[in-house]
Amino acid sequence: MLGVDPGLVGTGWALLEPGAAAPLVVDTGVIETSAGLPLAARIQTIYDAIHVVLDKLAPDLMVLEDLYTEYRFPRTALLMAHARGVVCLAARQRGVEIVTLAPAEVKRAVAANGAASKEQIQHCVQRLFRLAELPRPSHVADALALAFTGYLRAGGRWS
Amino acid sequence: MLGVDPGLVGTGWALLEPGAAAPLVVDTGVIETSAGLPLAARIQTIYDAIHVVLDKLAPDLMVLEDLYTEYRFPRTALLMAHARGVVCLAARQRGVEIVTLAPAEVKRAVAANGAASKEQIQHCVQRLFRLAELPRPSHVADALALAFTGYLRAGGRWS
Repeated sequence: MLGVDPGLVGTGWALLEPGAAAPLVVDTGVIETSAGLPLAARIQTIYDAIHVVLDKLAPDLMVLEDLYTEYRFPRTALLMAHARGVVCLAARQRGVEIVTLAPAEVKRAVAANGAASKEQIQHCVQRLFRLAELPRPSHVADALALAFTGYLRAGGRWS
Repeated sequence: MLGVDPGLVGTGWALLEPGAAAPLVVDTGVIETSAGLPLAARIQTIYDAIHVVLDKLAPDLMVLEDLYTEYRFPRTALLMAHARGVVCLAARQRGVEIVTLAPAEVKRAVAANGAASKEQIQHCVQRLFRLAELPRPSHVADALALAFTGYLRAGGRWS
């Protein structure tokens, strides 16, 4: 189960696999793009890198956040949506099913609080997976939280 | 010069080429996707169809609208941005340069009014290119208006 948190500046991803008691973190990463490049070049970087991740890890499911109805930063949200578009395209091209989850559901699942801050999510995810370090940037913590919530949604198991 | 007006429901495109006195309409079209399909499938349809257009028409330039800072329908804008992302990706993959224009500049160029309505743009574009019928849907008129404004920007000529 691959959680992906798309963003133009940074796109976090995290692969979980079933473990004896809880899901295990197989790999995580962040795709970063330089603000000095044209938008189309940055989008291509994200698209190419997600294809590399999909080819390497071969997940059967991708978990994304639902689109909100209100964003605090509309322009950032529009740029995020460009990235989300090519991430969805790559999943589709590789036959990876996409599940979307409400942000509040994800926050409740990892922090028992549907309005948890980014920092709280990072700390909760670190504890949840007993990570030696705080997952950074927050996109990686969000991707882990998405994959974990997708795992719970699937009844705590998946084939 | 290829004008493209991306949208999830309909993506209009229009190719102009230099003429003796004014640019000529070579071809126009609209890529439509069904609301019954998953988002990723609709985005893939747009991506594949834009690649077909680029391969067939081999434009040297693609003209898009700038992103606004305020949209009347934020959710529609976010879905448009998914489509715009894969349109930019396709252009980049084919080495087609992208130019973006402010909506008000485009409206002024074809309707002498930076706040013209969609219907006004359709009628102005019909007159401008002496089209037998009103360009429909409005995405096609917008794509023609974008390509025309790109033409003016290039000093009324391009190589």
